[in-house]
Amino acid sequence: MRYGSFFLEEITPFESMLRRMDEVIVQKRTRYQELTLFRSQGFGKILVLDKDVQSSESDEYVYHDTLVHPAMLAHPSPRSACIVGGGEGATLREVLRHPSIERCTMVDIDGELMELAREWLPEWHRGAFSDPRARVIAADARGWLEANPERYDVILVDLTDPVGADSPARFLFTEEWYRLLSERLEPGGVVALQAGMILPTHHREHSVIHHTVAQVFRHVRSYRTYIPSYFLQFGFLLASQATDPASLEVSLYAQRCHERGLALRYLTPELIRAQYALPGDLQKALREEQMVSRDADPFWLDAEGRAQQGPVGPR
Amino acid sequence: MRYGSFFLEEITPFESMLRRMDEVIVQKRTRYQELTLFRSQGFGKILVLDKDVQSSESDEYVYHDTLVHPAMLAHPSPRSACIVGGGEGATLREVLRHPSIERCTMVDIDGELMELAREWLPEWHRGAFSDPRARVIAADARGWLEANPERYDVILVDLTDPVGADSPARFLFTEEWYRLLSERLEPGGVVALQAGMILPTHHREHSVIHHTVAQVFRHVRSYRTYIPSYFLQFGFLLASQATDPASLEVSLYAQRCHERGLALRYLTPELIRAQYALPGDLQKALREEQMVSRDADPFWLDAEGRAQQGPVGPR
Amino acid sequence: MRYGSFFLEEITPFESMLRRMDEVIVQKRTRYQELTLFRSQGFGKILVLDKDVQSSESDEYVYHDTLVHPAMLAHPSPRSACIVGGGEGATLREVLRHPSIERCTMVDIDGELMELAREWLPEWHRGAFSDPRARVIAADARGWLEANPERYDVILVDLTDPVGADSPARFLFTEEWYRLLSERLEPGGVVALQAGMILPTHHREHSVIHHTVAQVFRHVRSYRTYIPSYFLQFGFLLASQATDPASLEVSLYAQRCHERGLALRYLTPELIRAQYALPGDLQKALREEQMVSRDADPFWLDAEGRAQQGPVGPR
Amino acid sequence: MRYGSFFLEEITPFESMLRRMDEVIVQKRTRYQELTLFRSQGFGKILVLDKDVQSSESDEYVYHDTLVHPAMLAHPSPRSACIVGGGEGATLREVLRHPSIERCTMVDIDGELMELAREWLPEWHRGAFSDPRARVIAADARGWLEANPERYDVILVDLTDPVGADSPARFLFTEEWYRLLSERLEPGGVVALQAGMILPTHHREHSVIHHTVAQVFRHVRSYRTYIPSYFLQFGFLLASQATDPASLEVSLYAQRCHERGLALRYLTPELIRAQYALPGDLQKALREEQMVSRDADPFWLDAEGRAQQGPVGPR
Repeated sequence: MRYGSFFLEEITPFESMLRRMDEVIVQKRTRYQELTLFRSQGFGKILVLDKDVQSSESDEYVYHDTLVHPAMLAHPSPRSACIVGGGEGATLREVLRHPSIERCTMVDIDGELMELAREWLPEWHRGAFSDPRARVIAADARGWLEANPERYDVILVDLTDPVGADSPARFLFTEEWYRLLSERLEPGGVVALQAGMILPTHHREHSVIHHTVAQVFRHVRSYRTYIPSYFLQFGFLLASQATDPASLEVSLYAQRCHERGLALRYLTPELIRAQYALPGDLQKALREEQMVSRDADPFWLDAEGRAQQGPVGPR
Repeated sequence: MRYGSFFLEEITPFESMLRRMDEVIVQKRTRYQELTLFRSQGFGKILVLDKDVQSSESDEYVYHDTLVHPAMLAHPSPRSACIVGGGEGATLREVLRHPSIERCTMVDIDGELMELAREWLPEWHRGAFSDPRARVIAADARGWLEANPERYDVILVDLTDPVGADSPARFLFTEEWYRLLSERLEPGGVVALQAGMILPTHHREHSVIHHTVAQVFRHVRSYRTYIPSYFLQFGFLLASQATDPASLEVSLYAQRCHERGLALRYLTPELIRAQYALPGDLQKALREEQMVSRDADPFWLDAEGRAQQGPVGPR
Repeated sequence: MRYGSFFLEEITPFESMLRRMDEVIVQKRTRYQELTLFRSQGFGKILVLDKDVQSSESDEYVYHDTLVHPAMLAHPSPRSACIVGGGEGATLREVLRHPSIERCTMVDIDGELMELAREWLPEWHRGAFSDPRARVIAADARGWLEANPERYDVILVDLTDPVGADSPARFLFTEEWYRLLSERLEPGGVVALQAGMILPTHHREHSVIHHTVAQVFRHVRSYRTYIPSYFLQFGFLLASQATDPASLEVSLYAQRCHERGLALRYLTPELIRAQYALPGDLQKALREEQMVSRDADPFWLDAEGRAQQGPVGPR
Repeated sequence: MRYGSFFLEEITPFESMLRRMDEVIVQKRTRYQELTLFRSQGFGKILVLDKDVQSSESDEYVYHDTLVHPAMLAHPSPRSACIVGGGEGATLREVLRHPSIERCTMVDIDGELMELAREWLPEWHRGAFSDPRARVIAADARGWLEANPERYDVILVDLTDPVGADSPARFLFTEEWYRLLSERLEPGGVVALQAGMILPTHHREHSVIHHTVAQVFRHVRSYRTYIPSYFLQFGFLLASQATDPASLEVSLYAQRCHERGLALRYLTPELIRAQYALPGDLQKALREEQMVSRDADPFWLDAEGRAQQGPVGPR
């Protein structure tokens, strides 16, 4: 910590992390964002997009296990999946481990990023982009899903937070967007979403997303995971019109893992089930939340991490 | 983040956090350590001892719920408790919420710190130091427990990590020490321990403690909690010769909470039970751990966060 | 540098200094600014106003020698002086060392700051505020000087930079302001100004001030000093209708020091004279500068440290 | 300053600079040190060796003008020169601008560094390494000069500080070393040395070097320059048995510049002469200094920047 190259990251609006960079591997700018890949002592390669650490070589499995498998295992036999975002290819990689999958469509706005990922992030995608079942689309996910009426057994949403009153991401966190996702689900389908950090300074981010999703879906379940390389606890959501994943037995999760040949590094059948037990303070926040994000009045996070609503900027 | 007063904390050997200080409330040095208390935007008052954040006003309940209540609720009716460390008084405060408690002994090496806590940390102790059931001892815990053969229903161990080959804390992490704790338990007694961060750079700290404790106790259970103001996930242990806390039903935890009038902010009966479900990677680390810390060959953490053993320095 | 309390200061828009604070002595907010006084290892007490280090106990004499004595010694017998800014009282203290001074008027906008200085900064003012020759006015200097037609032998201007398009300080860096200063000088009078850092990222700040002052005064001389506690080299200006300070002999400076009983810690007669020798790059910048700051089109520094002009905001 | 890649540099033991890196151009490790070259907003390319900024594209001329030309111009017609250190080639480049130079020998311990400089630092050396008058030796300077009895008109010493009790650089700051330099001078020869930062925390570094050099040379002159990209003021020394550079007239410096076709960016004849005027506090420090660094009892800087002497470690 005495000297050298560091990446400075705003973990919260009031706390910033200085991360030692043993080696800067690559820095590239796409039309949408800047990619920095560096080698760290504790986490191996670390991928940064713009200002936020996205993933590290040593713990990306924690994040991707948590986003992908609870949804995939809540479905008896997923054949089609859609990934919204997820540019580095590890979400795709995990989806393709389920042998019933025939087609996985990935829609990320940043085509250049996916090209960079192919070249520089083999530890993440491990060849998934070249899997014949994968279809990769460079497009705004909302417009693309509106225009393409296909349906999916599982939809996985992996987006950055709507930070700032003019963030274009605002319209990927509204009731109308979640209604669109519901319409793109096959009967019995399940949606999983990365749903914001859970922290005192950001305490409403997760509950607003939860409450908005709950306007659309019959079953909505929050769960949480600590991502070591983020130094943060993130919230996730499962949403479905058909299935409450917290009602499925540990034995069913175990059976599906076994049938699909899935040996997961982070999740276990017991942990998948256990993670739906939420702490009292979070239950209270979810119970009391009133804000619903809508296209006419979308929610966003201000510079202090507080949830704000409207006014409407251009979509 | 542009300018102002900050506290710089080494979160890991390779990552450091800059925390904005809105106001430095007090800085005092005792014989053993330096106390800094400052006001933050996100976490309210933050207490630092030497180099590490110990607790924040806004989330100390997460830590103290997690350390105290799983053990206290695993015991049918705890009448006596002993706290090792815990200078700021919040562990004591939580123990005293259990109405069966007749006496709680707290042994912390730093008497001056407890005096400072009385004056400056009312949000933490909330008067617990003045409770007639509390007995506060300023002494080295190992020596004091060796010399005082009283027994307790619950022992709560809240110590700092043994960092460095000459850390005196090394002898509070050895098999002999845990054997002493076992001898100081009443039949049916339970020990809870704060047991190190769980992070790639510190991956063996928790498993070495677990493995060492398992040399002594019949039942040992790991569980984890994310402490927001630390930006870290910490491991905890329950150990007992009599009871496996993971075998107790949710309904039993619920009943005991109800009987004792405990409305907890963080823990719920479901969450207490659920937290014994561990991720696969941690289960593997616990299974594979071979290191046992002993007085003749104690374990400690080096500057890179790695677990090391021996040689023996003076106790 | 591993951990502890630090003050983070933006030295330039692209470089920031982390300064270890051994002790935060006082933090107070006035209507205009926030004062932080802390103890450092290398510089003793350090005074910060808002975001910038103003002065340190161990090297304030470098700054105040450099601002005050070249002007005072360029005048044969200064009886009256006016200080614009200079809230902590050290400029006043140095002026009062010249025995010919009968009256020194100090105009600083922040009356609360001067009260805080009296109480907390004895190392700076050393009682100067209580000297019967001192008159201290809490007022906007431009308005006050416009309204009060007194004249002075020496005027010393010690102001913060005009940073940002809406900085009220812009109108204390214009031709009209310097014309006002000229009108407030007695015949033979001299003005000294702190005139901006001299650094590649701020390379025009000093030259714009120089060029603007040169619209008004017949003799204008730049000189430079490194202020250790700033880690920066600052430019200063002497301006006069009557005297070119660079034309005075070393022996004259020596004689005046001797007559006035001035034993200076930083400046010597040789150094006063030598400091008017400027480096080639700075001479070139002064020669080529075209920008004149005027009330209708005032100059200011943008976030990258570049000199900008207009548009006019409210004065 | 909110986020991104930064280089953290210990400017003093108590103050550290965070410098934004727009792009990391190259990072390489030689046997002796690590080279980092990055692009900055304010200073262009910045060269770091190990922990210290060495030079920046935008202000290297300040440093190299100051080290090279006062010595070269104090000599009526230098034909041979020797550079000790100076790996990036800019000192060599400046020496070769003097047309009387027939041979310039450069001795730097780090041959790999000079290879890297050739490839990556064209803005510094500008082809000087390929000049037929240049001879480049990769060797320890002390040993090489002891073994090679050639003499030089000018010797330029550009070394890093002896930081730490076991720094090998200690033996390049002793009376015996300076005596060796004196023996390697032609009659009328001049030595210039980079001689430590001048700062309250390092206040004796320069005076110890000065006092040690003064044991050997009849004429020793200190001078100072602020190096913007260091944010520090550095001391330099001229030493000669024959010539006091402060006794030479401005007109002589001007004439020699003219004869040699030297149009310098930083120095002017007036400034060369003026810089020998020292501030009172530094004169006092030089007058009072008692420490002489000798091989048997060499001086070094401790972690707090204080001058220490002995005990003798291996040379």
